[in-house]
Amino acid sequence: MSDLAPAETDVAFGIAFAAPLFDAIGKSSFDGVGFTRAAYGEGEQKAHEIVTAAARDLGLQVEVDAALNLSITLPGERAASDALILGSHLDAVPRGGNFDGLAGVLAGLASLAAWRHSGRPPPANVMLLAIRAEESAWFGAQHVGSRALLGTLPLELLQQARRLDTDRSLGDHMREAGADVCRLLRGTPLRDPSQIRGYVELHIEQGPTLTSRGLPLGIVSRIRGSRRCRRAICRGSCGHSGTVARALRNDVVFAVSELVMHMDELWRAIEDEERRDLVLTFGQFATDAAVHSVTTIPGVVNFSFDCRADSQNVLERVEIELLNAASAIAARRGVTFAFDPFTGDAPVEMDRGFQALLLRGARALGVPSTMITSGAGHDAGDFAAAGVPSAMIFVRNDHGSHNPKEAMELRDFSEGVRLITWFVANLGNGGS
Amino acid sequence: MSDLAPAETDVAFGIAFAAPLFDAIGKSSFDGVGFTRAAYGEGEQKAHEIVTAAARDLGLQVEVDAALNLSITLPGERAASDALILGSHLDAVPRGGNFDGLAGVLAGLASLAAWRHSGRPPPANVMLLAIRAEESAWFGAQHVGSRALLGTLPLELLQQARRLDTDRSLGDHMREAGADVCRLLRGTPLRDPSQIRGYVELHIEQGPTLTSRGLPLGIVSRIRGSRRCRRAICRGSCGHSGTVARALRNDVVFAVSELVMHMDELWRAIEDEERRDLVLTFGQFATDAAVHSVTTIPGVVNFSFDCRADSQNVLERVEIELLNAASAIAARRGVTFAFDPFTGDAPVEMDRGFQALLLRGARALGVPSTMITSGAGHDAGDFAAAGVPSAMIFVRNDHGSHNPKEAMELRDFSEGVRLITWFVANLGNGGS
Repeated sequence: MSDLAPAETDVAFGIAFAAPLFDAIGKSSFDGVGFTRAAYGEGEQKAHEIVTAAARDLGLQVEVDAALNLSITLPGERAASDALILGSHLDAVPRGGNFDGLAGVLAGLASLAAWRHSGRPPPANVMLLAIRAEESAWFGAQHVGSRALLGTLPLELLQQARRLDTDRSLGDHMREAGADVCRLLRGTPLRDPSQIRGYVELHIEQGPTLTSRGLPLGIVSRIRGSRRCRRAICRGSCGHSGTVARALRNDVVFAVSELVMHMDELWRAIEDEERRDLVLTFGQFATDAAVHSVTTIPGVVNFSFDCRADSQNVLERVEIELLNAASAIAARRGVTFAFDPFTGDAPVEMDRGFQALLLRGARALGVPSTMITSGAGHDAGDFAAAGVPSAMIFVRNDHGSHNPKEAMELRDFSEGVRLITWFVANLGNGGS
Repeated sequence: MSDLAPAETDVAFGIAFAAPLFDAIGKSSFDGVGFTRAAYGEGEQKAHEIVTAAARDLGLQVEVDAALNLSITLPGERAASDALILGSHLDAVPRGGNFDGLAGVLAGLASLAAWRHSGRPPPANVMLLAIRAEESAWFGAQHVGSRALLGTLPLELLQQARRLDTDRSLGDHMREAGADVCRLLRGTPLRDPSQIRGYVELHIEQGPTLTSRGLPLGIVSRIRGSRRCRRAICRGSCGHSGTVARALRNDVVFAVSELVMHMDELWRAIEDEERRDLVLTFGQFATDAAVHSVTTIPGVVNFSFDCRADSQNVLERVEIELLNAASAIAARRGVTFAFDPFTGDAPVEMDRGFQALLLRGARALGVPSTMITSGAGHDAGDFAAAGVPSAMIFVRNDHGSHNPKEAMELRDFSEGVRLITWFVANLGNGGS
C-alpha cells in the first residue's frame, strides 16, 4: 500500500469492524427464504439504523438528506467543501441475497474504519453514502435515492410508482419513512454535483465472469445500456396438428423461433466479428397455456426481449434488426408481430482516470483483476450521467444476484476494501 | 349415376330426410358455446336415439352391439352374410363442432333413405354403423367403439381410462350406458372382420386443403401415422439478462428455438426435396411463468412435439433426428433435454381398389375431387388395420374441426351422399 494509506493492520481492523454487519443486517432482514429489504420499508430502514449506529461508534458525522440517503463523513486533511463519495445501496429485492448493495456500503464503512484506526485523515473529505431504493423491483423505478440526490428523478414517479407489496405510492412511502417530499418536489439536486469529487461503488459481480476467470476483483469500464420490449405478441392461426399442410400453416412457434435464431446469428456476428459488447435475452417465450396442446398448431406466442450493450449505436442497430427480421418473418410465415414500446437506458462510461488509478492500485496491492463491463444498472451510472467522475469495483460472486445463493467470499471483499482504501489515499496524488 | 343406383330424385329424398337431423342433434347437444356429445354420455346417447328413430321411420333393422355401437342394416338383393359398412361416430369433443362424425353417419343414413325411396335393394347388404367414443378427448383413448367391435381395444383401458368430465372409468360409463362389458372382456371381435365387405367413412376435412383448392370432396389415400412427445423439458441456467456473457450462458429459449429451426429445415427438405408427406408441430413452448421475466435468462422451457407422416420410415427418421439434434444442441449450449416416452400410431393405407372406385365415381358424377391424406386418426384406420378394405371421403369444411366454427356446406355434403350411393351401387360391379 502507498505510505499515505492506512497500514495493513488498520485495514484488517476496518474489515473486522464492518464484516459482522453482514450477519447483523442479514438477520434483521431474513424472510425465511432470502433477504428482503423493501425500499423505504422495514428491512432497508433497519439496515440504515445498524450502519448509522456503527458510524457513530467510529465517531463519524452522520446525516440524512431529504430522500433519506444516509451520509457518513470522514473529513480530509485539507479543509475543502467537496468530498469523494463511496456509495452503494441498502435495499434488497424480495427474497434476494445479502450482498447486493450491502457489500458496497460495508466496504466503504470498513475503509472509513481503517482510516480512523490509522489515526490519520485521508487527503480529501470522504463520504460514505448509503443510498435508498436502488432496486427497481419495489417501485418499478430504479435508483430512486441517487436520482433524488442528483435532482434527476422524474417527479411524476412520486405519485405514479407504486410499491410491489403495498400498491401504495413512492411519495407515500417516502413521507411515511420521514423523507422531505416537499423538498424533492423542487426538483433540484440535494447535493451540488460540482461538490462531489468523485463516486466510487464497490458491488458484487452479478454474473459469472470473475468466477470463471478466477479473479477476485474487476474494474468496471462501462455500464451497459439497454433496449427492451416487455411484451411482444406473435399471432398466427391455430389448427389441428395433423391436418394442415406446411404451406397453409401460420405457426407462431416456428415464427418466433426463427426470430430468436436470427438474433442469435446477429449477436454472434457482432461479438465474434466486430468484437463489440452485446448480450441478448428472450426471457419469456410462451404459447397460451389456456389453449395450447400437443396436437394444436399454436396461434399465439407472447415473448419479451432485452438487449444490453456498451454502445448506443449497437443497441439501436439491434432494435432495428429485430423489427426488420420480425417483419420479414411475418410476411413469409403469414403471422403478425406486435411490440410494446421499447424502453431502456443509455450506456455510461466510467471515468477513465479513476479506472486507470484503480488498475494501478490493484497492481500495487498484487490483487489479480480485470477490466469488466457491468451488465446491470447501478447508482454509479446516475452519478456518471450527472457529470461526476465515477468508478465501480466488482467483487467475485457466485450464483448471480437477487437470490439467496449470492456467494461473495470475505477474502475477496477484503481485497476490495484494500483497493478502495488505496484509491482514497492516492486520489489526490495525481490520480484524477 | 350408374343405372343400378337410385335416381337423382331418390338421392334428393335421402338428403332431405337426413339433413334436418343436423339441426335436431345439434340442438340436443348445444352447450351454449359449441356442441358437446360426451362418449358414453348424454349428448352421444341423444344422437343415437335420434338416428335410431329415423332408421325405424325408414323401416330399417336396428341393432346395438355389446359396446353400444348402433348398426342399421339395409339388406342387399342377394342373400349374403357379409355387409358393406358405412360408418362414422356420434360423439363430439367438449364445445366442439356439429359436423365432425355426425356428417358421416347422416351421409350413410341419407344413402340408405335414397335406396329405400328408389324401391330397389342395393347389390349387397349395407350397414350404417354409428360408432361410439371415437374422440380421444373424453377418455384419453381414441376409437373405443370401433376397436371394441374389432376386438382390438386394450382391455386395461376399461379400468384405466377415465372420462375428462367425471373422472370415472370407461368401464363404469359403458356399463351405466347399458353396454355388455362382460362380453367385451372376452377380447374377441363383436363382428367377424371377414364378414365385413368393406368400410367407408365420410368425414369433414379437418384442415384447409379442399377449401384452399376449391374442391368439394377428397378421396383419402392414407391416414397419417404419428410420433409424439407430450412433454419435453430443456433445462439450463437462470441468470441476470445483463450480466452473463454469451459464452457463459445456458439459455434454453435459444436452445429450443435452435431445435425448432433444425426440425423446420428437415421438414422443408423432406417435403420439398424428397416429396414425402410430413407435418411437424411444437404445440407447446413455454418458459416457466412462475419465474420468467424480461430481465432473467430463462432456465427452463417445457415443450411438446407432434409429427405426422404417411410413412413409418419418415416418422422414425424424424424422431431420431429430433433426439440427435437435441443432443448436439445440448452439448453446444450447455443445456439438457429430457423427453417423455414417444407415443403414436402407425400410418394406415386405404384400400386401393376402393380409392380407385371412389375416384371413378366422382368422375362419373362430375364432382371435382382430389386424393388427400388424412392427418387425423379415424375409425377407418382401425378397420383397415384389422384387414377390412377401407376408404374415406373428405368433405370440404372451413375453420378446422373440434370447434363450433366447423363449416360444411349442405351442397358439399350432398355430393358426398351421391358418391357414397354410387359406390354402394357399383361395388359389386367389379369395383373391389
